[in-house]
Amino acid sequence: MTMTGPAFDAHFREKLHALLRWRRDVRHFRPDPLPPGLLDQLLDEAALAPSVGLSEPWRWVVVEDAARRTAIIDNFKTANATALAEQVAAGRGENYVRLKLAGLVEAPVHLAVFAEPDPVQGGGLGRRTMPETLDYSVAMAIHTLWLVARAHGVGLGWVSILAPDAVNRALDVPAAWHFIGYLCLGFPREDAETPELQREGWEQRQPPAGTRLLR
Amino acid sequence: MTMTGPAFDAHFREKLHALLRWRRDVRHFRPDPLPPGLLDQLLDEAALAPSVGLSEPWRWVVVEDAARRTAIIDNFKTANATALAEQVAAGRGENYVRLKLAGLVEAPVHLAVFAEPDPVQGGGLGRRTMPETLDYSVAMAIHTLWLVARAHGVGLGWVSILAPDAVNRALDVPAAWHFIGYLCLGFPREDAETPELQREGWEQRQPPAGTRLLR
Repeated sequence: MTMTGPAFDAHFREKLHALLRWRRDVRHFRPDPLPPGLLDQLLDEAALAPSVGLSEPWRWVVVEDAARRTAIIDNFKTANATALAEQVAAGRGENYVRLKLAGLVEAPVHLAVFAEPDPVQGGGLGRRTMPETLDYSVAMAIHTLWLVARAHGVGLGWVSILAPDAVNRALDVPAAWHFIGYLCLGFPREDAETPELQREGWEQRQPPAGTRLLR
Repeated sequence: MTMTGPAFDAHFREKLHALLRWRRDVRHFRPDPLPPGLLDQLLDEAALAPSVGLSEPWRWVVVEDAARRTAIIDNFKTANATALAEQVAAGRGENYVRLKLAGLVEAPVHLAVFAEPDPVQGGGLGRRTMPETLDYSVAMAIHTLWLVARAHGVGLGWVSILAPDAVNRALDVPAAWHFIGYLCLGFPREDAETPELQREGWEQRQPPAGTRLLR
């Protein structure tokens, strides 16, 4: 049966463009919690993301236990100290220390995200030569969450300065689950149209056309 | 300076939800080309995606040359034949052959997507312990492209049944570039609210709450 999907007009595309422009990797959160039920609602929307073979390999772990949060923060501190030492050696240390790289202490919601490495669901379709498409599916679900959260005024920050194996142990999840990212969510302290790394002078966006080739 | 970003209202969130619901992995394309300039416009939007350390590691290769397209299609046929043999052995062969897994022949636009594996841009920030975040950044840029394309009525299909190394050779791009995905774009032959894999009886979406744990 041929269906006709919803039409998206220029007005919607403008708002979508604004959403993409104003989505930020948020590092500064207000401490107030999300309204009851909102996190579940956002995760339901994230499950509309594409996934290889319809395998839906994302596994979300909401981290509320204080001791587990502390273990993650300690993991971050260790990984961050090593990264700082390397940046100092590369002459970028002064710049690096100005960057507050994690809202881990402030954010009301901590969310660890994993990929199931060999899901029954999906029958293996589409991932025989490229098993990493499972991880990409989870990254796209995180991105879906990011956009829907921002549309509700909720900010998300992605923490990747962590030793992955220790995350699985700290959260008592199967060792085989592939850690993808650790997310902080909450209401942002402020909005910004440009990335914090750009405002702090770390890096600039490049003209997008420079990333294209014709073959 | 504190700025106030755009407010997104319930009406926009409903339309965004519809976009997520009606985004599809498209396998059946009309042959007519995209309007002039639209692909560049869509790729400009995709560059608003998040990236680790603002490294913007995505590299887009628009494939127009007929011989190169044929090489990709041959690559797909070989990988798909192997996958079919495995599905037959698993008793899912009859189902598998009903799935038309690539709109490679019909789609007016072929787009190969790679990750720069060690970009200068971004100064290495955020990827010391997790270099794979570069690949996730590219996956999120593809997802951004997917949504913006759909908002323009353009369908996208992701082909992952390919031998990655052979893609780099066929397209004469640096061997170090990490192949992420091969995309078909064009106007879809029909709209659908449910994934084709679900309509064809391959797999069903699961209740999203089943993918969550509390710790």
